[in-house]
Amino acid sequence: MNHSLTNFSQRRRWAADQAISFLMQQGVEHPHVLSLGAGLVDAASLPVTEAIEAAREVLAEEVRGQSALQYGTTQGELRLRQHLADYQTRIEQTSAPAAHRVAVADEIVCTTGSQQLLALLADALFDPGDICLVAAPTYFVFLGVLEGVGARTIALPADEHGLRMEALEGELQRLETAGELSRVKLIYVVSEFENPTGISLSLERRGQLVEIAKTWSTRRGEKIYVLEDAAYRELHYDAPPPPSVWSFDTAGDTVIHAGTFSKSFSPGLRVGFGLMPRELRDAVNDLKGNQDFGSANFNQHLLADLLGSGRFAIHAEQVRAAYRIKRDAMLAAADEFFADLPGVSWVHPHGGLYVWMTLPPHIVTGFDSPLFRRAVDVEQVMYVPGELCFGGPREQRQCNHMRLSFGVQSPEGLREGMRRLSQAVRRFL
Amino acid sequence: MNHSLTNFSQRRRWAADQAISFLMQQGVEHPHVLSLGAGLVDAASLPVTEAIEAAREVLAEEVRGQSALQYGTTQGELRLRQHLADYQTRIEQTSAPAAHRVAVADEIVCTTGSQQLLALLADALFDPGDICLVAAPTYFVFLGVLEGVGARTIALPADEHGLRMEALEGELQRLETAGELSRVKLIYVVSEFENPTGISLSLERRGQLVEIAKTWSTRRGEKIYVLEDAAYRELHYDAPPPPSVWSFDTAGDTVIHAGTFSKSFSPGLRVGFGLMPRELRDAVNDLKGNQDFGSANFNQHLLADLLGSGRFAIHAEQVRAAYRIKRDAMLAAADEFFADLPGVSWVHPHGGLYVWMTLPPHIVTGFDSPLFRRAVDVEQVMYVPGELCFGGPREQRQCNHMRLSFGVQSPEGLREGMRRLSQAVRRFL
Repeated sequence: MNHSLTNFSQRRRWAADQAISFLMQQGVEHPHVLSLGAGLVDAASLPVTEAIEAAREVLAEEVRGQSALQYGTTQGELRLRQHLADYQTRIEQTSAPAAHRVAVADEIVCTTGSQQLLALLADALFDPGDICLVAAPTYFVFLGVLEGVGARTIALPADEHGLRMEALEGELQRLETAGELSRVKLIYVVSEFENPTGISLSLERRGQLVEIAKTWSTRRGEKIYVLEDAAYRELHYDAPPPPSVWSFDTAGDTVIHAGTFSKSFSPGLRVGFGLMPRELRDAVNDLKGNQDFGSANFNQHLLADLLGSGRFAIHAEQVRAAYRIKRDAMLAAADEFFADLPGVSWVHPHGGLYVWMTLPPHIVTGFDSPLFRRAVDVEQVMYVPGELCFGGPREQRQCNHMRLSFGVQSPEGLREGMRRLSQAVRRFL
Repeated sequence: MNHSLTNFSQRRRWAADQAISFLMQQGVEHPHVLSLGAGLVDAASLPVTEAIEAAREVLAEEVRGQSALQYGTTQGELRLRQHLADYQTRIEQTSAPAAHRVAVADEIVCTTGSQQLLALLADALFDPGDICLVAAPTYFVFLGVLEGVGARTIALPADEHGLRMEALEGELQRLETAGELSRVKLIYVVSEFENPTGISLSLERRGQLVEIAKTWSTRRGEKIYVLEDAAYRELHYDAPPPPSVWSFDTAGDTVIHAGTFSKSFSPGLRVGFGLMPRELRDAVNDLKGNQDFGSANFNQHLLADLLGSGRFAIHAEQVRAAYRIKRDAMLAAADEFFADLPGVSWVHPHGGLYVWMTLPPHIVTGFDSPLFRRAVDVEQVMYVPGELCFGGPREQRQCNHMRLSFGVQSPEGLREGMRRLSQAVRRFL
């Protein structure tokens, strides 16, 4: 702990030393390193033309332009929320099998990326020591957010169908026996193409998850919410995802569905959103009122225009096509350079931005490991160490995985990155 | 306290029942009420043409456009921070008397309006029970932010030159005697055209304030920071403001200077910024990393373009001209309708958006008061009750003031609003 932190709050101390800062620092200090780490999106896919057209339309007419440049509301621009509600309803209806929960604008809050929604929900729910159940592994930045509010995370096993339901029930049972059920506030799942594994929660488990949360809410005497992080929902390359976890919560009192335009359209506009039960919407609104009283209104007008005109859907299709090629390029390179390495395996993702690679148990991949130093300093390639993605006690984290992103590099860059990485790995086999 | 809040965090409970929500609710429920309450900006002054020109330039060239639509950094777009540093340096040099502190990009963080900076600083500094010293009255939304992190506020007397320095020193002395000096983290001042009084901190007191903070930091053994909220700095109608409080902190270790483009350009773009000592920049960056890892990058590119091209400065001049007319209209209407009312007085502001009106002590102005109900329900005019703007214990708040905004209404609307308000006030004299 840095001495100079003594004059700061507990919150500030909890926010220190986040892995993401170290990763970004590595990027700055090693500009020539080929990054398979960064979760940035493909630059060539960014919608420059669509953005200028939307800006032109929003600003073409004086009164509408002025309204986009004025303060908005904390909850978010009504037209955008209406379009989002329609879009959400339509996606559920056209999923296989079709679901029929109807979304309404009033249950939606617009945020600065879905990250802000995750942070606001953590702020709303967790006092220090409260518990969040997560999959092992899961989205490491959210683990940082939970740490930042002093929450405890319990990491539960997952398999190729996502979080394991009997493990979830077993843990809830264990916590009840230990007298800690009252501290359980939230179950967090990345339902589509999880960051980092690329695995989606199976259709069957989606319904089960909602059931379990409701049953155990009753036993707890207060709600245990489910936060469904659907950041990668649009990025499907083989088949559209099944109905959301949210669609199974027909009473609308258990599931928060977090979405974003950062991956499917543009992270620079920083527009995310969430659908949630009323008391959470009020909580998020109140906290956001203090935090910024509303994300950029102009950007919400742009997205409303893009959704309303259908240009967003067209662009999302193009994005899928571009990433499909890159996903295939990374998997082909994995076959080419890693297939003959004993004990090395990886997940074939059907969407998202990541390939999760597992090395033999004795090869550790962390920032301090010989492999990471070799990869960055000698082979000039970077990845995200898998251990960052495990909640719970540090000593229980698995240390032999790598999260590899195909978001940023070209297909050629991906092949070269995978070649370099295989060179580094070979040295330690 | 709403029963359903029991399942939420302490933070969420602290954020409940903010005055701003009630005010906005009043606006929604009484759409025909003429509002002298809202702190929105003049719609006609909003820069529709400038915004589309900036969007065109940022998006004209493919690579630059893509970079604006990609993720930015948590700290903010470097080009914008460089322009902000130059702008800050230039304003200090051209103030009267000239100051010569030079700003650098590295000490700047860009945020979602300056509100987010205020919230992040509160998060970084205050554990529950820590103390913030403020003027009485001061910006009520920041009082809500402080309440939201469990901080204690101590409200100190101000006069026509702003916060009184001997009162500040006296309070610090009192706190030291009481063994509470270690809990004092921050002194908050709205240096230019304070919201709600329109009063600026005098030149003499700016230097004194920095001196006092440094002296008492030494006695405390840890830094007591000064947060200079300069949201209205550009909105001067009679003469440019003196050098900032920040300019007196030549060592750069004490003062945070918070600025925003919301009042001078467009609140819909939601770009604010702060200059601050290094350890606070790190704290704000780390917390913001969890909160949203960066405000909208696209908007920061727009502002960089607007500052760099000089279009911002031209627009700010137009904004001043527009508000000067409205300020004069409200003051003329005050003379016309309130001059003959015994015990009624008001401040003539040289900038900002507000006229602070004081009624005889027996006329209370709060949300529950007969005057507020009469004004809203019968006369169809709304104001912000002055009591909201007082920190410290509720029973010590002054209850006979009104904050009147000339931001939104036209000169004719302002006259009509003031006429209606005088009708309501007359009834209680």
